[in-house]
Amino acid sequence: MTNPTSTRILVKERTEHGGVALHERPLRPMGPQDVLVRVHRAAICGTDLHVYEWNDWAARNYRLPIPMGHELGGEVVATGELVTGLEPGMRVSAETHIACGHCRQCRANRRHTCLNLKLFSKQGLGCFSDHTVVPASALRRVPDDLPFRDASIMEPLGVGVRAAMEADLRGRNALVVGCGPIGLFTIAAARALGAARVIAADLHAYRRDLAARMGADAVIDPVATPLVQAAAEASGGEGIDAAIDASGNGRAIQDALSCLVPGGALILAGMPSAPVALDLAKDVIVREAQIRGIFGRLIDETWLATESLLRSGRLKVEPVLTHSFPLERFEEAFELAESGAAGKVMFEMA
Amino acid sequence: MTNPTSTRILVKERTEHGGVALHERPLRPMGPQDVLVRVHRAAICGTDLHVYEWNDWAARNYRLPIPMGHELGGEVVATGELVTGLEPGMRVSAETHIACGHCRQCRANRRHTCLNLKLFSKQGLGCFSDHTVVPASALRRVPDDLPFRDASIMEPLGVGVRAAMEADLRGRNALVVGCGPIGLFTIAAARALGAARVIAADLHAYRRDLAARMGADAVIDPVATPLVQAAAEASGGEGIDAAIDASGNGRAIQDALSCLVPGGALILAGMPSAPVALDLAKDVIVREAQIRGIFGRLIDETWLATESLLRSGRLKVEPVLTHSFPLERFEEAFELAESGAAGKVMFEMA
Amino acid sequence: MTNPTSTRILVKERTEHGGVALHERPLRPMGPQDVLVRVHRAAICGTDLHVYEWNDWAARNYRLPIPMGHELGGEVVATGELVTGLEPGMRVSAETHIACGHCRQCRANRRHTCLNLKLFSKQGLGCFSDHTVVPASALRRVPDDLPFRDASIMEPLGVGVRAAMEADLRGRNALVVGCGPIGLFTIAAARALGAARVIAADLHAYRRDLAARMGADAVIDPVATPLVQAAAEASGGEGIDAAIDASGNGRAIQDALSCLVPGGALILAGMPSAPVALDLAKDVIVREAQIRGIFGRLIDETWLATESLLRSGRLKVEPVLTHSFPLERFEEAFELAESGAAGKVMFEMA
Amino acid sequence: MTNPTSTRILVKERTEHGGVALHERPLRPMGPQDVLVRVHRAAICGTDLHVYEWNDWAARNYRLPIPMGHELGGEVVATGELVTGLEPGMRVSAETHIACGHCRQCRANRRHTCLNLKLFSKQGLGCFSDHTVVPASALRRVPDDLPFRDASIMEPLGVGVRAAMEADLRGRNALVVGCGPIGLFTIAAARALGAARVIAADLHAYRRDLAARMGADAVIDPVATPLVQAAAEASGGEGIDAAIDASGNGRAIQDALSCLVPGGALILAGMPSAPVALDLAKDVIVREAQIRGIFGRLIDETWLATESLLRSGRLKVEPVLTHSFPLERFEEAFELAESGAAGKVMFEMA
Repeated sequence: MTNPTSTRILVKERTEHGGVALHERPLRPMGPQDVLVRVHRAAICGTDLHVYEWNDWAARNYRLPIPMGHELGGEVVATGELVTGLEPGMRVSAETHIACGHCRQCRANRRHTCLNLKLFSKQGLGCFSDHTVVPASALRRVPDDLPFRDASIMEPLGVGVRAAMEADLRGRNALVVGCGPIGLFTIAAARALGAARVIAADLHAYRRDLAARMGADAVIDPVATPLVQAAAEASGGEGIDAAIDASGNGRAIQDALSCLVPGGALILAGMPSAPVALDLAKDVIVREAQIRGIFGRLIDETWLATESLLRSGRLKVEPVLTHSFPLERFEEAFELAESGAAGKVMFEMA
Repeated sequence: MTNPTSTRILVKERTEHGGVALHERPLRPMGPQDVLVRVHRAAICGTDLHVYEWNDWAARNYRLPIPMGHELGGEVVATGELVTGLEPGMRVSAETHIACGHCRQCRANRRHTCLNLKLFSKQGLGCFSDHTVVPASALRRVPDDLPFRDASIMEPLGVGVRAAMEADLRGRNALVVGCGPIGLFTIAAARALGAARVIAADLHAYRRDLAARMGADAVIDPVATPLVQAAAEASGGEGIDAAIDASGNGRAIQDALSCLVPGGALILAGMPSAPVALDLAKDVIVREAQIRGIFGRLIDETWLATESLLRSGRLKVEPVLTHSFPLERFEEAFELAESGAAGKVMFEMA
Repeated sequence: MTNPTSTRILVKERTEHGGVALHERPLRPMGPQDVLVRVHRAAICGTDLHVYEWNDWAARNYRLPIPMGHELGGEVVATGELVTGLEPGMRVSAETHIACGHCRQCRANRRHTCLNLKLFSKQGLGCFSDHTVVPASALRRVPDDLPFRDASIMEPLGVGVRAAMEADLRGRNALVVGCGPIGLFTIAAARALGAARVIAADLHAYRRDLAARMGADAVIDPVATPLVQAAAEASGGEGIDAAIDASGNGRAIQDALSCLVPGGALILAGMPSAPVALDLAKDVIVREAQIRGIFGRLIDETWLATESLLRSGRLKVEPVLTHSFPLERFEEAFELAESGAAGKVMFEMA
Repeated sequence: MTNPTSTRILVKERTEHGGVALHERPLRPMGPQDVLVRVHRAAICGTDLHVYEWNDWAARNYRLPIPMGHELGGEVVATGELVTGLEPGMRVSAETHIACGHCRQCRANRRHTCLNLKLFSKQGLGCFSDHTVVPASALRRVPDDLPFRDASIMEPLGVGVRAAMEADLRGRNALVVGCGPIGLFTIAAARALGAARVIAADLHAYRRDLAARMGADAVIDPVATPLVQAAAEASGGEGIDAAIDASGNGRAIQDALSCLVPGGALILAGMPSAPVALDLAKDVIVREAQIRGIFGRLIDETWLATESLLRSGRLKVEPVLTHSFPLERFEEAFELAESGAAGKVMFEMA
């Protein structure tokens, strides 16, 4: 059997909402450190939606045309001659942070914040396709006993695992603000990683319902009850030890900070689009809060933990995985993801 | 209603196996920092068994007569005039480590290793009784929504929580060696505190069965399969990140150390009766193991975490709580506890 | 020799700048948990200056008359009947955070953020006096081989030690922003606690000079060179791993955050008087910064570390201790402290 | 200028004490991931002495002939075609642990304990030579402002930095047992990394003198005064918070463990040649000691910290660097190193 030389692939072509087409395109030639992957599953990320919608952020950060997709679960078909550690038949997922390996951050084992970091989604690679050719350094081997479906969401799930790890929730009460896919994965991770109580907040009833199904002990509608009050009640009077923001909303971040007991931690996983004014004296100094930003997964500690938790059955992610489409129904898939009435939307290749 | 001035109480009187009697005795007079507690539940600890059996260790460490028991769940009846933070009607448990409050260990918030530490069980107090008078500093308030049964086992359960905390099991594989009550509580704590897999080992089938019911993912009979091999298999090929010894057996400690992946941790919770020879070069240096001893609960971080985990339903302890007896059937209770064919044996007062 | 029943003491009496008088006043009666202290040295804190100047913050937080001072080095003269751990002749300093001992923060060994915290300076006690009667819980024993001068600055010095500890500067580059007494103590602590390089910034030449004498490797005038650029150069091209703000200035906090390498930490020790807008996406999330507020010393870990570092000679604080006055020259002392042309100003009793 | 094709090199040839000769030998051919290094300085390690003496350990672990040496400070002359991050003219040192990059330890950023670890000294490389060809993965770039002398000792110095880091000595009292080169480097690191007091013990007066010159606050002759007693006194009565063994002597390890305050840490850096019996109940459990083995440097956190501390002048290593020889006087060099009457002995190439 010879390796394919072309693939179907979704390409963002035009600066309009949508403007995406499914094409048959030649695969780029394999370099000595590249890997040819057959994609089985690929999931839509918030970044993909920005590109699909072509909002300001996308216009500032990307140039057309864009082969789409970076969250994949696939199988190695062939490897370049200098690739070590990967062989045909192995299952893989992708790490979107591609590091240089030489800078001080890389040497300090903080490759996810490499000073010369490249993002998978900006390298012209794409994985909303039947096959893709990617650098070996962007791939992560996944054990044979994990389904492709799980492999395809290990990258965003890793953000939730990382967020829950950074907060050290063991025996403590956690508040997750914002129940999109990252927030929902964070709820699952908080449950798996030792939180006493996991409390979730979102404006949308659909997402609150998903939050409950992911294992949240209590769900808050911050319109119905102010967040600080509702969170205190839901904590059994003990208070919130750590809040994880997955909303990126400035007001929600301010409120989440106000919920914390002294010594508590606020983990920021959602990107605010503008500066946020914080009452540092009252909320951070007198109450000794910590604020920590997270930007992706620790390479590869987070991958290893996520893998162990998935294999052992501790991480329960099924309720997030609400929808799956064949590649040709991509318009339906993006529309649904945009609507908010979905958890994680993914493509399943034939 | 006037406060009682006497109580039924179990007293170890004679230097023989058993040698215990149930007496009506006057309560000791309340000092200004004492608390009168009505005992609802009280659990038999390994120390109580040593005293009951009057083995070498007991003979070296105790003097007769001994009012027995220190694991209690009860209710405050009256408080001395200088007692703050406790009031009649509040639920309480007991911390067996009573600290001085002034030494360097106390000042460093390591009161459980106070340089002038007193143990509850050596203060002539006792709680295998209807009432007891104890120093306020030995009591811990328990929320009203926790049953007395849970309050009575918070002290030994806290050892399991502490052991699982020290190891930081989040996303990792844990091995618990020895499935007596402390080992069983450790299994529950490891499950609650984020372990990927919890593997348990014991020589006795009864205890292995309890271990499985406490949530162990795999149980090992080290006679049937060598521990190192069985643990590696049960870990999904990932290896053991942390082992917790609750057996105190020298050979088991050596084997548990050999199971660890490089960088792993061995937590010692069970007391060996003799020095143990360790291959430090191979097992500790080249593989960079950590060995950490734990001696009771962190005061009061462990109490707070245990309480939150019990209240939120994360700690599942029911299978350990196998037997309960009225005080007058104490001989049956001790015999059963000695037999090994029991989890935690407790007294339930009328 | 009988104990004194009155003392000279500085009292803030009137709502004007200054408005302070030195009076002979009766000592308050000793309660059973009180201690009579002969004050040898007492230092002027920023809080004392606010009260002296009677600015908005002071007017909002205090009621006249106010016995002044809380940073003391003294000697126990007599103790109430329930006091343990302190005896006449022992040397003492004072911890301004007085905790309840029963709340969740106290139980979690975070007494400095006690939910019912009382501040020494608001309890009507004062130590700009020959003698003072204070609760035993506010005193800390100081070893006999530490001079009273050192005892009197252990409280503010502890803030510097805490700040340097929280940042974990070992082998890393630290930036201290604001070189008032707290900033200067932080420089000394950063040097003692393992920083590779300590870089200091202040607007005032006098303070930059003190910073250099405290051991800063480089001093920055942020007017002459922008902070981010100057800090990068002074770090030998390695970057700033941790910044400690002791200025409370919003703009300085924003700049300090911008200086950090990815994964760096910003420790906030100075209180901003208004909310500060932070670019959380760029400065905290993408670069994974940590922001941590500190509010005083860890009780008593910080005291123990400060004591060991002073006794061993590692903490070099002499250059900060620029001026000492007898109590009756208090006007000179406050004027000098207000001028900014001083390090720490203290009173030395006869 | 063409690159050299041969080099002078010290080769261990015969199974006798000594049995080493200086030969001119062809350099091995450069592979695509190799680097040609001109060696300026190279230091004698304990391993080199074992090989020189051909003791049991050497005979078990090595096969003749052996090109000797692995601690080097040199300069890149040429690089293979796939080498990135290194260019001719750059200064380099060598990391003796060469990792596979794919195993679970490597993925967990614990490459120094790689499951497929190769040691530089067993790869037939050698650096007691004018030039050497080594894999790029074994080299570490050193900044231009560090002298070759410092580069040549960064590997063993890193063991001292790692040991002091693992113990977290900030504001604490450290005991260093064994004052050979590793112990002496550990003293310097403990001083640089925030210890309150550094106490050193060795049987030999020459080494105790070097220990004092490296900055030890007190030096102990354990023959004259028992270690536990002498260490307690030297700690100002505070006790030993962390002990670092660099002796590998079983009795010294037992004694060092006995010195610790409750909660203290014993770091093992020296390899015992036989199992060591430890009183785990008394010394590890009741006093909650930690025992941690270290096996080389963290890659590359330790290198980065060592570099920053050397460049900033915090690490004071001069007194260890007692002797330097040209390559042809190797017999003198080895004899001196064997005698114990030397710190670090190194070769300086022409």
